Amino acid sequence: MATGHTDPRRRERIVEATLDVIAEVGVAGVSHRKIAARAGVPLGSMTYHFSGIDALLREAFRSFTDHIVALFDEHLAAPADRDEAREAVADLVHILSEGSRRDLVLTQELYTLAARRPVYRALTHEWMGRSRVHLERHFDPDTARQLDALIEGLTLHRALAEEPHDRALTLEAISRITST
Amino acid sequence: MATGHTDPRRRERIVEATLDVIAEVGVAGVSHRKIAARAGVPLGSMTYHFSGIDALLREAFRSFTDHIVALFDEHLAAPADRDEAREAVADLVHILSEGSRRDLVLTQELYTLAARRPVYRALTHEWMGRSRVHLERHFDPDTARQLDALIEGLTLHRALAEEPHDRALTLEAISRITST
Repeated sequence: MATGHTDPRRRERIVEATLDVIAEVGVAGVSHRKIAARAGVPLGSMTYHFSGIDALLREAFRSFTDHIVALFDEHLAAPADRDEAREAVADLVHILSEGSRRDLVLTQELYTLAARRPVYRALTHEWMGRSRVHLERHFDPDTARQLDALIEGLTLHRALAEEPHDRALTLEAISRITST
Repeated sequence: MATGHTDPRRRERIVEATLDVIAEVGVAGVSHRKIAARAGVPLGSMTYHFSGIDALLREAFRSFTDHIVALFDEHLAAPADRDEAREAVADLVHILSEGSRRDLVLTQELYTLAARRPVYRALTHEWMGRSRVHLERHFDPDTARQLDALIEGLTLHRALAEEPHDRALTLEAISRITST
């Protein structure tokens, strides 16, 4: 019979529950108790799997950034040329800004944490590097870096505006920043 | 003799103290009690000046966005032509991303709040509009909108990277997005 310690899904469930709690109440409201209750695991198993809240936040946000990087991968694997790649990037901006409110909140929670505590900048730094790898399939490294910043800004501005700009403007901005 | 009610600086002090408390502990940690203590005003005067925490947060963030918009104004008033304006925008990106850690934290706190609660998007929407007015001194409205998103992304990526990109890349990105 499986005990708590050998349940391979328990660790994953804790990580997922951590993201749920952050999405609901923010990093500031996270506690071992809330996460254990959400994951349906005994409070004691939290310290068995994670050395503390920081280790848990790091793993949870790492799992979250995996999910966004996978979206980049998915959209940027197919395009056959640069024009198709530009259209795919525009799709990505609109999906990210119109899609899951949870993803938007988790992104901002991670940025706020990294703004406050430089140790979390390893995570945001690495995330940017991983996004650029997918953009570099179609664009040179300097262009990929500029484009990654543009994607960030366009996505955020669309998500936080009351009258978000349309796809033509997104595509025009992408075309300009990738014209070398 | 001035009573609490007629002290014209008291309201300002409460707004400033609200931003201090948000910068330190985040929106989630804000309370009337903490702000009153920080501002050095009686707890009772908080409800005299503000109908509740939301009214206070709105006025505090409005005051914060005034401060960032003033930076846009300051940098974009002087340039005599588009090339000078591009240099000024690059300066702005580097000042915003290297400068006050407090400004970075407050920006992210506002975005997180707006991501969670659509009612705060009136504030972020208005802020973007006010930034663009200053960019439109030098660029057409569509370009100003794209440039504003680029400034956002470049600033955030520089601030949250362990090896921020250099000024040449910032300027190249600005030149590309403003070439029409």
